[in-house]
Amino acid sequence: MNEKIGILALGHGSKHPHNKDVVTGVAELISRKYKNIVVRTGFMNMNSPTMKEGLESFKGTGVSTIVAVPIFLAHGVHTMEDIPQILGISRDSRETIIKLDGRDVKLIYSEPLGVDELVAELAYKRAKEALSSN
Amino acid sequence: MNEKIGILALGHGSKHPHNKDVVTGVAELISRKYKNIVVRTGFMNMNSPTMKEGLESFKGTGVSTIVAVPIFLAHGVHTMEDIPQILGISRDSRETIIKLDGRDVKLIYSEPLGVDELVAELAYKRAKEALSSN
Repeated sequence: MNEKIGILALGHGSKHPHNKDVVTGVAELISRKYKNIVVRTGFMNMNSPTMKEGLESFKGTGVSTIVAVPIFLAHGVHTMEDIPQILGISRDSRETIIKLDGRDVKLIYSEPLGVDELVAELAYKRAKEALSSN
Repeated sequence: MNEKIGILALGHGSKHPHNKDVVTGVAELISRKYKNIVVRTGFMNMNSPTMKEGLESFKGTGVSTIVAVPIFLAHGVHTMEDIPQILGISRDSRETIIKLDGRDVKLIYSEPLGVDELVAELAYKRAKEALSSN
């Protein structure tokens, strides 16, 4: 990643604080580990910033490409229909161009978390924690 | 984990196949990596096995403890209210005893995935994949 890249961590949002806490916490961990990446958040429902506000929040950062990453475990109506519509991304192209600070910025839509050893490892870790605290 | 342990991977369920595919895929990865653990799945809505069927599916496996792990990113109404009610676990004790094959089996309820470096790493990986396929 040579050009200046932004990651917009997309959250579902919830009336409870937990979904926003997780998406924000994950965004902070990415930001801390990859200091050359500009990380922001945006929520679909019930929390702020909204996804559009999240995109606006890259103003002044100089990013040339933003990858919108759904912090969702799996595809569903939200990731396949609602979010592409909010971001103005067709499901075929999976990318578009937006204007920030009068410049063209590429917006790319990534896959959600999905099946991965990292999720399996974390689920196993939560099971071990529950056993040991028990 | 010396005694024979079971992990019940709990999924939300969906009218789309993706949620079940992810929960089932993650359960398979845990099972492949930790061959001494008996791994099963159970879904809250719209998919089978149900959570109760998932518990029943440990019959004949000889597990003495089952950890029910919500394959959910964050706590919410489902993890805090619906699932404990389905599993018959009080939110204070976070554990109960169930009968399988006429024996007492301890059922422990773990935390969902939550904020973790592993989720941050996976989100970053999905962003990189979207950039490179682009």
